[in-house]
Amino acid sequence: MEIEIATIGGYEEVGRQMTAVRAGDDVVIFDMGLNLSKVLIHDNVETERMHSLDLIDMGAIPDDRVMSDIEGDVQAIVPTHGHLDHIGAISKLAHRYNAPIVATPFTIELVKQQIQSEEKFGVNNDLVKMEAGETIDIGDSGNVQLEFVNVTHSIIDAINPVVHTPEGAIVYGLDKRMDHTPVLGDPIDMKRFREIGREGAGVLAYIEDCTNAGKKGRTPSESVARRHLQDVMTSVEDYDGGIVATTFSSHIARVKSLVEFAQDIGRQPVLLGRSMEKYSGTAERLGFVDLPSDLGMYGHRKSVDRTFKRIMNEGKGDYLPIVTGHQGEPRAMLTRMGRGETPYELDEGDKVIFSARVIPEPTNEGQRYQSETLLRMQGARIYDDIHVSGHLNSEGHYTMLKALQPKHLIPAHQDMKGFAPYADLAAHEGYDLGRDLHVSNNGNIITLVDE
Amino acid sequence: MEIEIATIGGYEEVGRQMTAVRAGDDVVIFDMGLNLSKVLIHDNVETERMHSLDLIDMGAIPDDRVMSDIEGDVQAIVPTHGHLDHIGAISKLAHRYNAPIVATPFTIELVKQQIQSEEKFGVNNDLVKMEAGETIDIGDSGNVQLEFVNVTHSIIDAINPVVHTPEGAIVYGLDKRMDHTPVLGDPIDMKRFREIGREGAGVLAYIEDCTNAGKKGRTPSESVARRHLQDVMTSVEDYDGGIVATTFSSHIARVKSLVEFAQDIGRQPVLLGRSMEKYSGTAERLGFVDLPSDLGMYGHRKSVDRTFKRIMNEGKGDYLPIVTGHQGEPRAMLTRMGRGETPYELDEGDKVIFSARVIPEPTNEGQRYQSETLLRMQGARIYDDIHVSGHLNSEGHYTMLKALQPKHLIPAHQDMKGFAPYADLAAHEGYDLGRDLHVSNNGNIITLVDE
Amino acid sequence: MEIEIATIGGYEEVGRQMTAVRAGDDVVIFDMGLNLSKVLIHDNVETERMHSLDLIDMGAIPDDRVMSDIEGDVQAIVPTHGHLDHIGAISKLAHRYNAPIVATPFTIELVKQQIQSEEKFGVNNDLVKMEAGETIDIGDSGNVQLEFVNVTHSIIDAINPVVHTPEGAIVYGLDKRMDHTPVLGDPIDMKRFREIGREGAGVLAYIEDCTNAGKKGRTPSESVARRHLQDVMTSVEDYDGGIVATTFSSHIARVKSLVEFAQDIGRQPVLLGRSMEKYSGTAERLGFVDLPSDLGMYGHRKSVDRTFKRIMNEGKGDYLPIVTGHQGEPRAMLTRMGRGETPYELDEGDKVIFSARVIPEPTNEGQRYQSETLLRMQGARIYDDIHVSGHLNSEGHYTMLKALQPKHLIPAHQDMKGFAPYADLAAHEGYDLGRDLHVSNNGNIITLVDE
Amino acid sequence: MEIEIATIGGYEEVGRQMTAVRAGDDVVIFDMGLNLSKVLIHDNVETERMHSLDLIDMGAIPDDRVMSDIEGDVQAIVPTHGHLDHIGAISKLAHRYNAPIVATPFTIELVKQQIQSEEKFGVNNDLVKMEAGETIDIGDSGNVQLEFVNVTHSIIDAINPVVHTPEGAIVYGLDKRMDHTPVLGDPIDMKRFREIGREGAGVLAYIEDCTNAGKKGRTPSESVARRHLQDVMTSVEDYDGGIVATTFSSHIARVKSLVEFAQDIGRQPVLLGRSMEKYSGTAERLGFVDLPSDLGMYGHRKSVDRTFKRIMNEGKGDYLPIVTGHQGEPRAMLTRMGRGETPYELDEGDKVIFSARVIPEPTNEGQRYQSETLLRMQGARIYDDIHVSGHLNSEGHYTMLKALQPKHLIPAHQDMKGFAPYADLAAHEGYDLGRDLHVSNNGNIITLVDE
Repeated sequence: MEIEIATIGGYEEVGRQMTAVRAGDDVVIFDMGLNLSKVLIHDNVETERMHSLDLIDMGAIPDDRVMSDIEGDVQAIVPTHGHLDHIGAISKLAHRYNAPIVATPFTIELVKQQIQSEEKFGVNNDLVKMEAGETIDIGDSGNVQLEFVNVTHSIIDAINPVVHTPEGAIVYGLDKRMDHTPVLGDPIDMKRFREIGREGAGVLAYIEDCTNAGKKGRTPSESVARRHLQDVMTSVEDYDGGIVATTFSSHIARVKSLVEFAQDIGRQPVLLGRSMEKYSGTAERLGFVDLPSDLGMYGHRKSVDRTFKRIMNEGKGDYLPIVTGHQGEPRAMLTRMGRGETPYELDEGDKVIFSARVIPEPTNEGQRYQSETLLRMQGARIYDDIHVSGHLNSEGHYTMLKALQPKHLIPAHQDMKGFAPYADLAAHEGYDLGRDLHVSNNGNIITLVDE
Repeated sequence: MEIEIATIGGYEEVGRQMTAVRAGDDVVIFDMGLNLSKVLIHDNVETERMHSLDLIDMGAIPDDRVMSDIEGDVQAIVPTHGHLDHIGAISKLAHRYNAPIVATPFTIELVKQQIQSEEKFGVNNDLVKMEAGETIDIGDSGNVQLEFVNVTHSIIDAINPVVHTPEGAIVYGLDKRMDHTPVLGDPIDMKRFREIGREGAGVLAYIEDCTNAGKKGRTPSESVARRHLQDVMTSVEDYDGGIVATTFSSHIARVKSLVEFAQDIGRQPVLLGRSMEKYSGTAERLGFVDLPSDLGMYGHRKSVDRTFKRIMNEGKGDYLPIVTGHQGEPRAMLTRMGRGETPYELDEGDKVIFSARVIPEPTNEGQRYQSETLLRMQGARIYDDIHVSGHLNSEGHYTMLKALQPKHLIPAHQDMKGFAPYADLAAHEGYDLGRDLHVSNNGNIITLVDE
Repeated sequence: MEIEIATIGGYEEVGRQMTAVRAGDDVVIFDMGLNLSKVLIHDNVETERMHSLDLIDMGAIPDDRVMSDIEGDVQAIVPTHGHLDHIGAISKLAHRYNAPIVATPFTIELVKQQIQSEEKFGVNNDLVKMEAGETIDIGDSGNVQLEFVNVTHSIIDAINPVVHTPEGAIVYGLDKRMDHTPVLGDPIDMKRFREIGREGAGVLAYIEDCTNAGKKGRTPSESVARRHLQDVMTSVEDYDGGIVATTFSSHIARVKSLVEFAQDIGRQPVLLGRSMEKYSGTAERLGFVDLPSDLGMYGHRKSVDRTFKRIMNEGKGDYLPIVTGHQGEPRAMLTRMGRGETPYELDEGDKVIFSARVIPEPTNEGQRYQSETLLRMQGARIYDDIHVSGHLNSEGHYTMLKALQPKHLIPAHQDMKGFAPYADLAAHEGYDLGRDLHVSNNGNIITLVDE
Repeated sequence: MEIEIATIGGYEEVGRQMTAVRAGDDVVIFDMGLNLSKVLIHDNVETERMHSLDLIDMGAIPDDRVMSDIEGDVQAIVPTHGHLDHIGAISKLAHRYNAPIVATPFTIELVKQQIQSEEKFGVNNDLVKMEAGETIDIGDSGNVQLEFVNVTHSIIDAINPVVHTPEGAIVYGLDKRMDHTPVLGDPIDMKRFREIGREGAGVLAYIEDCTNAGKKGRTPSESVARRHLQDVMTSVEDYDGGIVATTFSSHIARVKSLVEFAQDIGRQPVLLGRSMEKYSGTAERLGFVDLPSDLGMYGHRKSVDRTFKRIMNEGKGDYLPIVTGHQGEPRAMLTRMGRGETPYELDEGDKVIFSARVIPEPTNEGQRYQSETLLRMQGARIYDDIHVSGHLNSEGHYTMLKALQPKHLIPAHQDMKGFAPYADLAAHEGYDLGRDLHVSNNGNIITLVDE
């Protein structure tokens, strides 16, 4: 059976991920993501109203024209988890393919919301829910299956999809951390990965998330971040002024920890900001997380400001607002608070807890710095970097290679500079550039089996 | 009562700490430390045989000549804890003063060992043990007392000494972290600090450890480092090759964690290297830590190498050597292992765990890099930065100011550049440079009460 | 004669410089500057319409309330050169003092323009021109004189003012580089500084610009930057597409070099952007620089856009636009070009030459990065860092100390962190913190002679 | 005609360069270099006595075993210039090939000296001198020629060799800067490169030096460094104490500038240190540089120390020692001076001029820091970074691509991380990874023409 892999997007950047696997006549697409930084560098771009071709020209969404060189039928579009760099282009590209979108329940829900906010294209692909651990047939050959393996990442309900073929399995390894104590959800299913590495024809190809391949050691478990956060929150237990926290809105496990520690120190948590409401609301509605029944979540500016007014009236010391804005995004809630645009007034000594890391890109660093500076000018004191990454460091990569023993390796989720440390690491394990280690650009097709 | 403070050493560097407080006719000296980097920059300097004056010229030990301008009798020399930058000059300077050395039991034991290894001077000062929480009289006036307040640092049995005078208390705040869950020993005694801030004449002066004054937020508890370390150690549980760990030898709590997690993953821990044996042996003998009765500790090169041979024979997979060398020190055990000078042979995939942070100084960074590179060339994989600092970040400083409400502030344990963020921080709390905030150099005398 | 120095602004930051010297009954004020970054961090602040007190609260202009503690009459307000951090608060503060503004001709002209654009206050102080090398009497005592010594900086007509008193000279050393081959204007007058150091009572106090005190060696001459720029410009001589250059608008010597090299490579230079027109136009009108008589300078957006259209019609290859925007300022010309908001269209391979260095502050770095990224996305290739600083590195400081041999030193134009390397350097020359080296904050008064 | 290129060494590092080109039956080898850092990381390794295989295992010299897969006769070994990373393995590997070493006169002389110091192998290859601009036949086919094109680098007499074949030219582009005003020797021969790009079958392949491919803009000309150096040297003209300078010994143009400026400020230059004597002596003997007839050059420690004694007797103010040690190498002259191991005594205020840049590698940075610190502790003041690189920045790469218009590109002289910016740059010019842009590892063979 012929096996080809098209490296469509996210092979020259982090963002706009898209990869297609052809096994005989059947094609599966993994991810259709958005490179948000290519949108934000322009002022006042509204992607909702833009055409795919313009977004492709901007480098914002994958250039999927290479798909016309792939002979076969797309049978499924499989986003691996709900982050924008994996689902953000679905509303712009999915309607071109006559295939269902297959994903875990939480991811499907986020895809649905995204499609609803799209204004340019009508996206009518079927939305099919599939749980981690399940396997379905792909196409009619009876020879190709799609399996979801549970992984741990900075969002819930993340999986690594596997395409089983007579030539071996193709494992799509984006994005994950190797977490055995993940605070929310099940630990990563290493047992299954080890089985896949040993059963049948083994693993033909492994497409790997190289984000942190150059970092030493092991990405700590979410439970380490939780312990760190607890230490910080407990230390401000006696403070009776304002405390505000911010984190990635989609990071439900972290939001859960913030909510719990807020209660531990006698404060009522409240989630503020549009994406805070969206992600946590969705997670709770779908039963992924058990949040206090009276937990307030407000997204619209008016209801947020009303909540801030109530907090100011009842006393800042009784509340912990958990807000958007951990990267200093100009329109996020914390940035507005720094600019004094909300009813919440900061006083000398108030605490602002960033349970996040600054994404190291100069525009971003500048905005974050500006936001922090404005907060400080009002007297706020900053706690930052209370976080762990969602991506594997080098030791995780070694462990995956040992578990899967893949014949071919395809580094992804970086540019060539970012692939370099992964190539080094793979060379230690006997892989050779150009032979079984395929450093690819966007828009290329790698032929693995040619008969 | 006249009150003067002489800022003798450690006011233009981190290292060679020494401060004297005169209250009327009575003088107490805090710390007599060594600036090790000023020794190591020269090749083949052996401090044991050197004269004080040469070491002063090198900038290695405090220049205590300013003591001749202090009118009064030295009644006690008080090292606050057992790190070299606080006790390392005692063997060179203490014999000049007719006064006992008063310290906690663990510190006294380390001072004793240091005096014994001194070859140039005979040091015969009395060694007096005093526990955290105790108070003694100083001099005969009946008006001056010395109290030890328990603090948490990266070594056990650390205290902050307080000199009580009719004019108020002088609190010597070097070195500490605000740890409420310190793994070993009692939490920091914030209750007592708050009392001191409110009783009698309050706090006249606070001498503060500015090491991390420029860092945001809160220094995490040792228990956060422990949780991180546990995550790493558990993740290599299934590895059956060599695993080696290194940390600060004097950091008994960390050594304890390493020992316990080694056992948790089915390995026999063994402490190797001269200072590993010295500090852990001392701590155990004095009952500060409960280590397994069969825990091997070896300092002499021969017995270390014998142990390594035994490990190689019995199987690396059964042991966790905990060794010196976390900074790549040229003569330390891990560095020797990297150079292939010990019987312990590293194989591809073996793990080396640095439960320490690189001290950011170029010579040091170069050595550490060289050591890591040599370890990697033998196939080792590095886990690093599994650590928390022993010094207060900015939020700890704010908390101390609120607890003590001192009339005067004297930043210490840095140079002027390092004092700058502390001065900023103090300005937020109303202190003013030149009025009640005293930025001082080595060798100055600050007169606080002049009558 | 009593001598006091009030360190009013620019002693906790770079920006909003202001210092007052009292000699007996007479007071001279040096500089009244603006801290632009404190304005720009807020969106949509228009300083022209703001009241002084609000600007003081923002940290944007000096808090001159300490002047009420200075007993004496202000006889002159002396801005040392035309940069905003030295003259930018004149329109907000000068009207409070019944004294003329005394400065060199180019500086006076810039002050005049600033006063004219002020909308809140009427500033009616006399504007008095005085050349470098001249001396005038201050007050009626006959004992106090003001002298201007020629220095070299990144703007023309810069001086260091000296107040001569019976107690010795007070030299105000902000801002300068030690340039013996300055491209435009006379070399720094070191001969006069050496004389001042040796005549009469010598130098009582020297207030020094510490901006670069922590940098090793010597700030290169402007002629080194000119040679570097020539190398770059010559290398693109054969390119027939668009070349654009940017630099500090007020840096007339650099603009002159750009203009000359443009002609050398057969391109017509044209200055675009409001401050480009303002500074170069003023310098030419006053005869400070000899620019080609047909050199176009356009400030208003319409005339700039018309010029761009003409360039596009006639061929980009015939022109060198010299534009504002070297720091990526959001509203500057180059930033607009990057955003595609001007008629000038960039093509793949076009060159953009930054004859400037990025000011190292995160907001700024973010904006510059964004501007560069947008330029690159259109195909531009960037040449940057073709620049030398306008401030003394450490060796220049040593030379000044040797020339002046001042009794007292007052570091300025930095915060305490920035003073630290200067204090180190001064300690090498025998000065001692708290004795003759005065590290001061904004709002303090230092009494040098008290009788 | 079959054309293959073997990327033997220097494709995973900077150092141990070696590349072979096969055209039909004839093979030419470019460079046989040493990776010195792989030697120095071990203590006390003496390469002179070591066997090739051990040096290969250490990663110090190219692993040339891949040459057995190349069918054809090696007709020439062509080192491009005299730096160790290009000639340093000749004494270990050349004797395996029955072929002459063909190089420019200065390079041949350095190769000869290296062979003479070899203790393990007898190297008897013919040494053939060939000038830039010359062309010779390779093999007997009559179809293959070798040409030397003059380039500019940080050593004199550097060339880029070109193999002309019926399939087009293969241009080996290591190492160069695009210098039109190079202080010593002829400018880079861009005219010839442009001709080669247009004549016959054009350029089949271009192997490029990617050292600085990630740096923006243009590498400045050596004449810019010369102007900078002159500015520094002139500024210390009046100093009557000690001035010492250091630079790369092989950088004859820089040494020449130092010698000339020493004379300009009234000091007698003298070259000290083994490699100073070696390179400058060789360059002068061969007539490449015209140094003062009485210029002292001393390499042996005794004669160096005798010279230092004479300088101390006659007065440091009359001399400018130009010494080895710009990277803080432990055994170099300046490092010995810092340690006080030479008769030259430094006094407070003496100047040390580093006309070099620190090579950014931690071990190196550590050593340089240590050397500088020891020099400072004796009172020396440091001027550093007076230098320009010898390698092309990105704009030089664009210019080369435009001149040569090669069909295939092979990035070299870096690892994959270093190739990444070059690959980006090449993509802008239409090259595509895997098609005509060949990112290769050590030990690979690229087949360009296969018939």
